[in-house]
Amino acid sequence: MYRIALVGAGFIGGVHAANLAAHPEVDFALVYDVDADRATALAERYGAQVAVAENDVFDRDRIDAVLIASSTDTHARHLRSAAAAGIATLCEKPIDLDLDRAAAVVAEVQRAGILAMVDFNRRFDRDYAELHRVVTSGEVGDVHLIQMTTRGPTLPPLSYLAVSGGQMRDQTVHFFDLARWIAAADPESVFATGSTVIDPSLADLGDIDLSAVTLRLPGGALVQIDSARQIGYGYDERIEVLGSTGLVEARRHRTGSVSRYGRGQVADDGMHAGWFERVSASYRSSLDHFVSALQNRSPVGPTLSEALKAQAIAEAATQSLCSAKLEHVRYPAGSA
Amino acid sequence: MYRIALVGAGFIGGVHAANLAAHPEVDFALVYDVDADRATALAERYGAQVAVAENDVFDRDRIDAVLIASSTDTHARHLRSAAAAGIATLCEKPIDLDLDRAAAVVAEVQRAGILAMVDFNRRFDRDYAELHRVVTSGEVGDVHLIQMTTRGPTLPPLSYLAVSGGQMRDQTVHFFDLARWIAAADPESVFATGSTVIDPSLADLGDIDLSAVTLRLPGGALVQIDSARQIGYGYDERIEVLGSTGLVEARRHRTGSVSRYGRGQVADDGMHAGWFERVSASYRSSLDHFVSALQNRSPVGPTLSEALKAQAIAEAATQSLCSAKLEHVRYPAGSA
Amino acid sequence: MYRIALVGAGFIGGVHAANLAAHPEVDFALVYDVDADRATALAERYGAQVAVAENDVFDRDRIDAVLIASSTDTHARHLRSAAAAGIATLCEKPIDLDLDRAAAVVAEVQRAGILAMVDFNRRFDRDYAELHRVVTSGEVGDVHLIQMTTRGPTLPPLSYLAVSGGQMRDQTVHFFDLARWIAAADPESVFATGSTVIDPSLADLGDIDLSAVTLRLPGGALVQIDSARQIGYGYDERIEVLGSTGLVEARRHRTGSVSRYGRGQVADDGMHAGWFERVSASYRSSLDHFVSALQNRSPVGPTLSEALKAQAIAEAATQSLCSAKLEHVRYPAGSA
Amino acid sequence: MYRIALVGAGFIGGVHAANLAAHPEVDFALVYDVDADRATALAERYGAQVAVAENDVFDRDRIDAVLIASSTDTHARHLRSAAAAGIATLCEKPIDLDLDRAAAVVAEVQRAGILAMVDFNRRFDRDYAELHRVVTSGEVGDVHLIQMTTRGPTLPPLSYLAVSGGQMRDQTVHFFDLARWIAAADPESVFATGSTVIDPSLADLGDIDLSAVTLRLPGGALVQIDSARQIGYGYDERIEVLGSTGLVEARRHRTGSVSRYGRGQVADDGMHAGWFERVSASYRSSLDHFVSALQNRSPVGPTLSEALKAQAIAEAATQSLCSAKLEHVRYPAGSA
Repeated sequence: MYRIALVGAGFIGGVHAANLAAHPEVDFALVYDVDADRATALAERYGAQVAVAENDVFDRDRIDAVLIASSTDTHARHLRSAAAAGIATLCEKPIDLDLDRAAAVVAEVQRAGILAMVDFNRRFDRDYAELHRVVTSGEVGDVHLIQMTTRGPTLPPLSYLAVSGGQMRDQTVHFFDLARWIAAADPESVFATGSTVIDPSLADLGDIDLSAVTLRLPGGALVQIDSARQIGYGYDERIEVLGSTGLVEARRHRTGSVSRYGRGQVADDGMHAGWFERVSASYRSSLDHFVSALQNRSPVGPTLSEALKAQAIAEAATQSLCSAKLEHVRYPAGSA
Repeated sequence: MYRIALVGAGFIGGVHAANLAAHPEVDFALVYDVDADRATALAERYGAQVAVAENDVFDRDRIDAVLIASSTDTHARHLRSAAAAGIATLCEKPIDLDLDRAAAVVAEVQRAGILAMVDFNRRFDRDYAELHRVVTSGEVGDVHLIQMTTRGPTLPPLSYLAVSGGQMRDQTVHFFDLARWIAAADPESVFATGSTVIDPSLADLGDIDLSAVTLRLPGGALVQIDSARQIGYGYDERIEVLGSTGLVEARRHRTGSVSRYGRGQVADDGMHAGWFERVSASYRSSLDHFVSALQNRSPVGPTLSEALKAQAIAEAATQSLCSAKLEHVRYPAGSA
Repeated sequence: MYRIALVGAGFIGGVHAANLAAHPEVDFALVYDVDADRATALAERYGAQVAVAENDVFDRDRIDAVLIASSTDTHARHLRSAAAAGIATLCEKPIDLDLDRAAAVVAEVQRAGILAMVDFNRRFDRDYAELHRVVTSGEVGDVHLIQMTTRGPTLPPLSYLAVSGGQMRDQTVHFFDLARWIAAADPESVFATGSTVIDPSLADLGDIDLSAVTLRLPGGALVQIDSARQIGYGYDERIEVLGSTGLVEARRHRTGSVSRYGRGQVADDGMHAGWFERVSASYRSSLDHFVSALQNRSPVGPTLSEALKAQAIAEAATQSLCSAKLEHVRYPAGSA
Repeated sequence: MYRIALVGAGFIGGVHAANLAAHPEVDFALVYDVDADRATALAERYGAQVAVAENDVFDRDRIDAVLIASSTDTHARHLRSAAAAGIATLCEKPIDLDLDRAAAVVAEVQRAGILAMVDFNRRFDRDYAELHRVVTSGEVGDVHLIQMTTRGPTLPPLSYLAVSGGQMRDQTVHFFDLARWIAAADPESVFATGSTVIDPSLADLGDIDLSAVTLRLPGGALVQIDSARQIGYGYDERIEVLGSTGLVEARRHRTGSVSRYGRGQVADDGMHAGWFERVSASYRSSLDHFVSALQNRSPVGPTLSEALKAQAIAEAATQSLCSAKLEHVRYPAGSA
């Protein structure tokens, strides 16, 4: 049994709390939040204790691992605390919105040598994991082209968007990580272009709600990603990988398998209403993976280094949005 | 080039005329119909000549083969004429609604030794042919169960139904033939039960508009067929074959491949409006097959014997509709 | 919180235990099994107590409801005990393999007036529930034909089959219940025919491993059910309902949504390996439903009466397997 | 009946010849080719006459319309001849590989006022036409994003590629036309990047075999197109249009509707082997459209102006391949 503490008792903290409580190898020991009431509510519901002070969490005598699900601007600080205490860490993305600060934290964590993983949970989605397996096994030959779609049902609140770092760093970054992981290669350059088709006021934030990104990989393989903040038909993501000998696709998910045949049309069950219905199972799988890594001291991924690389691509993509040019991706030293 | 004459210039005669005219190996030479105007119209459209008398068709000096697409009650007479003249024949089903009369004709044609085929065109449907190939190749192991669906969009006119022989002999018989062909076996017994859910007045004709049929094959394999005269969503047929090691299915056909994603539902293109849109291509394929048989003197199928067997199953099924019992199928001597 | 006791700690008892433990409204209080070790193992894993004697379970001071998941031959006894104690009951099917004994128990439970439900869990499957909703709402018009498929991956052990009551009572009975529920009608008559295509030795048990069943409903609607004990491609079940204006289908379930495009073929994710992967979620949903019924004293279904009716159909179907005739279904008095 | 002459008796000329011969409103009068033998072969097969000299074709007394299917470098000359003779013209794309020369020809044809259409046949594909109808009807709201895929099964011969103008002008140009047509808007700018993943020697021709293109439309809508010359699984094209309220997709075409269920996988019929199987029906539809235009003097599309615009986009895309920048599209004066 691993004693795991949770930092952050907001929406995603609640998701993690339920998974921690249900996991047979985990003792959900402690929960901390700047808002003590939120922490208490979660603790009571799942039989955990409330940490009075932030530092209580980073106590190796009480805690084997910490799950960081607090607000983005606190991730770096908590990672440093965990590194200092020598406590294994599963951290929500991003490490820090500022790439240089993120790189500095990663360097510090690497020196401390703790087991650390960033929760790019989509790698643990059943279908994406299978797609990765197919590609890695060579079933479709060399990767030539990856097509990715990430589309949300509704524009997040402007207050959220204002501190999100923009669409590349907040939404598309998941697919930068997936692209690297699937292709087993670091993109060399990126072109991105975007628009505000949903809410023109986003332009005031320097942000967009629709974008098309192209990545170039070593050897000439290409990646296309379309990202939309708000679509009219639910939540939609999909990936297809064109290899030299075949294609593998992780198709759109539907809510069920019921078809209604009427005159001229057949209406099937549609898309999930929101992102959480689509990906919630992958949070459990990523926790499983982290716990296995604790057990086996096995290689843990996505590592902080890898998260840094995904951020570096987002950085170059953000630059390309302005320059309208293909931009070279500069990976930080720490992301070797 | 084969000089082929067409007997019958109604709707299905028109379909055959177009296919005869377009076939590179066929000289569409002659058309006959009791209604001379209909014959003339077809002849002019496709550059054929009109046969003044029925006997003109059965002239081996002018004609290499005849395609019989006239009314059901004339098929037997024309088959006899073709046999007497030694002219190869492609005949619309059925040979004769009366099984004994049909058997007598088949015996006569067999003695004459002409090449003769019954136009159970669905055997030449691209998907059914592929399904047959898969089953025959052993890809799904031994046949255990066949499920068939045959459903039309609208009840045919009562005038047609009154002389059709009933749902088993008119509609389901196509699938009796397909079942025998796919399973490569002669059903031993049949249970059928039916209802008039669309038009109760059918009961006055001793007919039904909905039925469920079960066939037993040698060795214990089973076949289920549902037949509906009128459904609300277009024309629908499908076949699936459960084998000992796998399943093969020829799915429902749709009019196209367009999907419309809306909130909660995805609407795909629906079913064809009528049977002809669904199966028209198979009329061309069956003509191709007949012409190949003329060229190669190759085994030709479905033979008259096989058509007789399908009719024999329809006969027993019709009996079961009344008896509410599993009925033994008695195959006529000529159908060996 | 409802204090619920579990009787039976075998495989399906284990499934219920996990669901009871995870349910927010349930206090998983007690577990009993004739094998005390099995009971102890479950109790320890999920924090329940072990009942030393069977009677401890039926104590209204300690327990609000009991979940009966013990061996089939004990269901009737436990139902009687629950009725006597006035404790609400969720009981695995069947009530008793003998229809008369089952009817007697149902009468007793009805007199006691306890809330009682039989766990025909497939009614709570997401897709079947949606299909039921579509049919009930009238979206496809009047029910004309229901087609059902139930196929397992491997023949159960002969030891199990020997006491199962045969394919109709053990496997197909789920779909007799679903057919009644979907059509909102009691079948009037049934024809069944079966074979032993997998294991001829089943014939010695008077059992079959493949069957085709046809039900007739009041008004002429028909139902076709194919049941197979062992197929080569995993676990397969599906339902389609042909209505007067359209069709609704709950399609086969696949393990995922990954497609692999190769030369000439596209290979999609296949079927689940076993029945449990396919239906496990519906056990949670049926428990939810039972707990809601406890809360609201709401109408609870499937009731014991309804389970009795499904059994009555299985009885007539079993008879038809021998008689090769359409058999009238006789519903017991208690199943009004 | 319209007397139509065919110029060009190569592969695509042969396709047009068959369609001209089968069209009920067309008298396939004349065929010309620089290779007289090819012309003669087609003429004999379809009952047309052979034009001895090129000029015989452009004779308004004999011919109502001409179909230009000769080699690319002759299109402009034949268009001029048709314009001079006042003969309606259906011309294979492109008008001329050189955009300025093409613009000059278009101006000349416009001055002559003949009915002229470029055979961007995919507009007449059943599914693309339906997708266009859905978008135009407003069913998915405002166009936000179009995703297009165009992938061939095998690299064309280098001899062909050497004179093709490159992937943008030869392959992707079809989708530039479709994008304009579907969005009802002229792209403002384009980014393109490409690679030689199949044959590095293409680089010597200044060409590529894989590319990713992004278009920006007025108002901020985006288009992504991936083009591949050679894939391992047949011929593949698809289009999806994300609108403000929904999505519409013209899915990949399969060769049939047969599914084979095996352990763990379901193998469906795959893609067509080549482009012709996929799009051949649209050649008939585009001819139908042209003949309707002749009959009704109705607006004819795709016009030469529109073809010129598609070429202008290809021109800017080709430039972007080198500059690695988003390039402004400059439409020639004649393409208003």
